[in-house]
Order: sequence, then C-alpha cells, then structure tokens
Amino acid sequence: MFFIAPYDTIKKTEQGGNALKYTIGIDLGGTNIAAGLVSEDRKLICKKSVPTQGKRPAEEILRDMADVALSLIRENGLDGKDVTAIGIGCPGLVDSKNGVIVFTPNLPFRNTDVRKAFREYTEIPVYCGNDADSAALGEAYAGAAAGCDSAVMITLGTGVGGGIIINKHIYSGFNGAGGELGHMVIVKDGEPCNCGRRGCWETYSSATGLIRMTKTAMQAHPESGLWKLAPSLSEVSGRTAFDGLRAGDPTAKEVVDEYVSYLATGLTNIINIFQPEVILLGGGVAKEGQFLCDLLMPQINRERYGRDVPQTQIRPATLGNDAGIIGAAMLGY
Amino acid sequence: MFFIAPYDTIKKTEQGGNALKYTIGIDLGGTNIAAGLVSEDRKLICKKSVPTQGKRPAEEILRDMADVALSLIRENGLDGKDVTAIGIGCPGLVDSKNGVIVFTPNLPFRNTDVRKAFREYTEIPVYCGNDADSAALGEAYAGAAAGCDSAVMITLGTGVGGGIIINKHIYSGFNGAGGELGHMVIVKDGEPCNCGRRGCWETYSSATGLIRMTKTAMQAHPESGLWKLAPSLSEVSGRTAFDGLRAGDPTAKEVVDEYVSYLATGLTNIINIFQPEVILLGGGVAKEGQFLCDLLMPQINRERYGRDVPQTQIRPATLGNDAGIIGAAMLGY
Repeated sequence: MFFIAPYDTIKKTEQGGNALKYTIGIDLGGTNIAAGLVSEDRKLICKKSVPTQGKRPAEEILRDMADVALSLIRENGLDGKDVTAIGIGCPGLVDSKNGVIVFTPNLPFRNTDVRKAFREYTEIPVYCGNDADSAALGEAYAGAAAGCDSAVMITLGTGVGGGIIINKHIYSGFNGAGGELGHMVIVKDGEPCNCGRRGCWETYSSATGLIRMTKTAMQAHPESGLWKLAPSLSEVSGRTAFDGLRAGDPTAKEVVDEYVSYLATGLTNIINIFQPEVILLGGGVAKEGQFLCDLLMPQINRERYGRDVPQTQIRPATLGNDAGIIGAAMLGY
Repeated sequence: MFFIAPYDTIKKTEQGGNALKYTIGIDLGGTNIAAGLVSEDRKLICKKSVPTQGKRPAEEILRDMADVALSLIRENGLDGKDVTAIGIGCPGLVDSKNGVIVFTPNLPFRNTDVRKAFREYTEIPVYCGNDADSAALGEAYAGAAAGCDSAVMITLGTGVGGGIIINKHIYSGFNGAGGELGHMVIVKDGEPCNCGRRGCWETYSSATGLIRMTKTAMQAHPESGLWKLAPSLSEVSGRTAFDGLRAGDPTAKEVVDEYVSYLATGLTNIINIFQPEVILLGGGVAKEGQFLCDLLMPQINRERYGRDVPQTQIRPATLGNDAGIIGAAMLGY
C-alpha cells in the first residue's frame, strides 16, 4: 500500500474537535485503487493507493476499496461522524442513482451493488459515478473550472473521453451512458473507430490519432527532422509532432496543423451544442497545455456560433490524476 | 386579430370560482404573434393571433403582445389572479434570466427588456425563451415527450434547429446561445453553411439540404419518375423525394437513402452525447412522421453507443405550431 504524504492538515476547533467535514474519493482504475480524503472546502488532505489486482473476484476488490477508505479516515484521526460520504469513480457504465456498477471493462464488476457491498464495512453513504465524469466534476469543484456552473472536460488519451457538468452536477443521460463526446462523427464515412462507426472525433483527436498522423507524415517525408526525435516508427508518441514543431520542422508543423484542425472542429461542435462556461482539456496530449490552446483558438474563434455573447473558455485541466479522486469525493454533493 | 375557437373549457369550482391556474404562452414569429391560454394541467384552452408587422418599432409590437395576452385572459372570464405567468418564445438570442430579448433576426429587438416593458400593462410575471427551446419544452410537457425528464427536439425546416430539455428545463448554455445542434460539423470541410463553417449537419439534414440532393439527382437522372412529381426544378420540395420513394422510383430511393444516412449520423451523435429519453423530430420534413423514423432506425441501432442500456426513442413531434405556444406558457415553471 502506497501512502502519500499529506497535502494539507486536518483543521481543529479551539476545543480540539474537527472543524470541517470530509468525504472520501476512490478512483478505481485497472491498475490501482487510488483514494483520497477531501475536506468540505475542496482540499485533498492526503491520498493512498493499493494495486487493484483486477483478476480477483469483485468482492475482494470491494473489500480493499473499503479498507483503503476506512484506513484514510482512521489514520487521519477522524471517525465515521466526520466523513459524510464515500464516492467511487470507475471506468464503464454506472447506475449512479442506485450505486451500482453496471459494467467495467477489464474488471469483474457486472451489475455490482457497491452501495450494498460497502454496508458490510461502514454506514457512511456511498455514491458511484463514471471516472471521466468524476474527473470533470473534480475540475469543476477544485480545478481549472472551479466556480463554473457548466463545464465540459475532454480527455485526450488513447481515446477521447468526455465529462459534462451542468449546474455543478454530472450529466450522463437518462441511462448513464451519455457524454461519449469522442464518438461524435465529424467525418462521415471517415476513419474506422473501435465503436463500430466511421469518422468519430476520437479517431482524429486522440493520442492514437495523432500518432497515426505523425507516422504517416514521417513515411511520406524521409527527410523530416521528426526522424531525429523518433528514429523508428515504434518510438513515435503524442509528443513527437509537437516537439518537432517547436524544433522548427515543417513536416511536424503540417501534422500539428492537421491534428489541431480536427480537434478544433470537435471543440467548436461542443461549443455550439453546450456553450459551457469552460471546456477543459485533460489527458496525455493536453500536457501541451496553453501552447495547444493557443493553436486551437484561431479556428474556434472563426467558426463558433454566437459571437456577440460571452464566450466559452478553453483551458488545460490542472488537477491531473487527482481530478478523479476529488471528483469522486464530490459525487454525494 | 384572429380568434381560434376554444379547444377546452375553463373549469369551475362548485362555488363558481376558477378551479385551475393558467399561464399565457406567446410565440413571437416574423409573421404572427400567436398566443394561447394554457391551464396548469397542460391543456391549451384557446389561442389567438395578430400580425407581427415586424417593421414597426419594438414598443408597438410589445404593446400588441401584451394586448393579445390580456384579451385572452379577459375574454375567458379570468383576471390577473388566475394567471401566474406570461411566457414569450422568440427567434434569436434571449437572456432568459433577466427577461431580455438580446437579438432577433428580422425583428427590431436589440437588448429589449421585455419584462420591464410588460410592467406597463400587467403585474403578471413575464419569462422569455428562444422559440426552438420553447417548442421543445412544450413537447416535453404536453406532447410527444410528455413524462420525460430529458429530451432533445430537432426541427427539420429551412435549417436544423435544436432544443435541449434536461430535468424538464431548457438547457441553453451559460450565455443562452447553446443548443445549435444544426451547426455541429458531421462532414469536415463539407458543404458550406450559412454560419460560416463547412459540413454542418444543417447543410445535409434540413429541408434545404434534401431539396438540393433531390435536384442534383434529378439532373443526373432525366428518366426519373421524380420529374412527374416536380416537372421543373423550382417545384421540388422536401416531400418530392419521399413521394417518389413511395411511388417506387429508384432515383428517389437513392436520394432518401442519402438524406436518411446524414440525418441518422447527426441523430446518433446526439444520442452518444446526450442519451436523452427521447429525440423528437419536428418541422416540415418531420411530417413524414413514423415513416421517416422507421427509415432512420437501422443505422442508428447499428451505430449508437451503449447497447446494453435502455435506448433513446426517436419519435415525431405531435404538437405542431402549438408546441411553441404551450412551451412558452411553461417557461415560468
């Protein structure tokens, strides 16, 4: 079990009691169960994690999830009265109303009643949500969208994930399956997508899409400086083209221009649909941060609808992996 | 002033008082100001309309709007105490929080404080909303989406309009300009759109798009039976291809197949993003009703995300022009 040094301290009253209430957020991933203690003023007090060992029966994973949550409470000198909720974010489909994980890829949860399972270990109320949604909620409470009522978070990783926040709450449709923003077709009959459609935004704007574009351009341009950054195609990453652009390579500039154009097309769609206060970019590609945002804005400003109104801001997400923990801790609010 | 015979009657208590409360909905259009008296049990009691005469100063139009509202109250034997709200739906951009029409194309409203203007005529609270949003709200309260918490209405007319209902309320973004679903690009670098982008859903799925596809196919197929339905290209309408399909014409079938494929692509995007309980199709093309819905379903069922969950229904809207009046009457709820 990893224990990460406290970020913040437990505030005490003059009488020595606890001045604040707390919630626990658990980010259930394929590799680790990461959990954090979060104060009602949205501060991550401390976090710890244990390996998920996803091939075990669901009951064992649930027991470790409860263990790590309860140990965070105990080790910080708190008890059940100080902690108002435990929230769990996990990949896949969640029935948040009933606290049930309907389906999780790579983990053995199938219609698993998490709320009921946790009752064996604690009386603290339990809430569940999707992990991308939880990350968006975390950023909306404590990150780059703090103070915003509406926000859309786009995660640019292996795929393109989406989390929609409306009135400070997750919106995921009547069946919990909404917010699949990466599976919005932007090129009818375009590149095949894992979901079965063709031309999904994800196939162009994910790190996977960027790597594909980079490799194609390198094969067409044996003279490109990109070959210095990635001497073989297997070494191409989501950073290669951006690094090449910064080094002045013209082929890299073409790749980034193409990638940015697809990304801006999808983002402008999101603006025209949602007009949220802010769109946050998270995930691997978004490590390019403000540099990427600045590249996106000319096309977005040229194309977006409603120009004489306050404009949606595009910002890098700021909480990184903590977003999922903090957002999970907010699921009960 | 047109007066339309009552649809329903004012319900009385045994003591002769009024058994229900009412609201007034006003659908402010470029041609007519249409208004209706709506009971708290969502019934349109009666409606009337006056010509907008949109070239007049805003004050005169506002006076006629108040006139038609107050006459509906008076002529139905009600007074201000029986009527809890007046709602106004209008094209363009509305600041619904403050009751201000920010901008209306073809009408002289520019940052017009409608709430303040109505105070000269009545103390009944006034609410404003966009007309496409109001129509969606009307269908969600009293039409094809009655009983649904979430719904998206798509209006297939000259353009493609959108209205988003979440938790029985209109969602229009933080600046009131959201829900422009027709301006979601589905064909990057495709047909030019009036909004300045290329490849917007509207350019393919509006009646205008269908008419363009029909004309192109007729020019390529001088032998097509479509020429019997529309002897000259200027006679082509949004119905021509559908009528040709029903008459067994193969060119008409190609046109409808193409149109349906673009429409289904956008609708599947809406499902993947919102997973609403229901998507309603309104506007001219949607007069094809269930016939059109049945054509759309195979592609939607093949492509939509989240197949093991309850599925979004696609239905024709049912209230026609009354949707905007009834929805406007619900703006205060």
